[in-house]
Amino acid sequence: MSILPKSIQAVIDQFARLPGIGPKSASRLVFYLLSKHPQDVRQFGELLGNLTESVVLCSECYNWSDAPRCTLCSSEGRSTHELMVVADPLDVVALERTGYDGHYFVLGGVISPVHGIGPDELRVRLLLEKVTRENAQLKEIILALDPSLEGEATALYLMEQLEPFKLRITRLARGLPIGSDLEYADELTLKRAIDGRQMIEKI
Amino acid sequence: MSILPKSIQAVIDQFARLPGIGPKSASRLVFYLLSKHPQDVRQFGELLGNLTESVVLCSECYNWSDAPRCTLCSSEGRSTHELMVVADPLDVVALERTGYDGHYFVLGGVISPVHGIGPDELRVRLLLEKVTRENAQLKEIILALDPSLEGEATALYLMEQLEPFKLRITRLARGLPIGSDLEYADELTLKRAIDGRQMIEKI
Repeated sequence: MSILPKSIQAVIDQFARLPGIGPKSASRLVFYLLSKHPQDVRQFGELLGNLTESVVLCSECYNWSDAPRCTLCSSEGRSTHELMVVADPLDVVALERTGYDGHYFVLGGVISPVHGIGPDELRVRLLLEKVTRENAQLKEIILALDPSLEGEATALYLMEQLEPFKLRITRLARGLPIGSDLEYADELTLKRAIDGRQMIEKI
Repeated sequence: MSILPKSIQAVIDQFARLPGIGPKSASRLVFYLLSKHPQDVRQFGELLGNLTESVVLCSECYNWSDAPRCTLCSSEGRSTHELMVVADPLDVVALERTGYDGHYFVLGGVISPVHGIGPDELRVRLLLEKVTRENAQLKEIILALDPSLEGEATALYLMEQLEPFKLRITRLARGLPIGSDLEYADELTLKRAIDGRQMIEKI
């Protein structure tokens, strides 16, 4: 597409590299920005350009942070008895909305032989070191990994590694998502929902 | 959402302001960028920050350009007999794919009383000046505006203004889009397709 000015095409190419944004959406976004105030676009560019350099990984949970220890890890009000292991930083954002008030540990992904990711590519060793260090106050490790084949395999692997610590090791419940239709649920979800059926509590 | 570092949240907010990108997609995009090489993210930011300042409006067609006259207007190979009037720069990108090889004029929008856009907010005067200037070589003006109420009203208005020039004034055909199902077409499209029916050419 040589008809667009090089500087516009260059920004379109950058947007089109983002996940879920095709060349057409990228063009639309860039032409939208062209209609905005130059000052605003410049600010967007500056914030974006400084993105990776303005954050570090928290030395405790390995989530993105603007200080050596992130706000969650340095918060006094959170329970030190639970440690929730997640694959990615975005999972923390989702889980925080539930009101969970323990600590987190970001593993950096899940075991995936197809993509060449084994335990050594993840922060398994760092997790074991953290659990060793905090063994006295820790009571439970919650493996909050995706309910996928790779997530399950990672959970099983971590369970083996964490067994010697004699802690309560749990994972998130599988079952019907709230608001879903039972008739549209896939058979594996239904099977897990039956396997994990719970007593109805008396009012 | 105070749990994210300020610099990350600031970039998410910027992305979330773009059309069609909600806060969740914005988070996903920013966390994707965090996983990329800092050098690449910095480059994206710089290109984006310089976007509006590195382009000007072409003095001939008022499309975005990196020179006072854009590549299309300064191209020797294009026909000077046709002038295609479009609402926005993105329309030029779409029309260029069809192989059209005349010239363009970007009107800057369509007449929309609801949004307070009258002929004076558009480049109607500049269009008339251009047509006056190029009257000798011009043969046809194609009004390539959206087939919406506002697009039609703008086309009618321009037709009136352009009438004194005694040129062929056309607009894009309305009808069934290629690959569509007749039974799903709305009644207005069908009516237009019947009104504009064409003789089948003999092979």
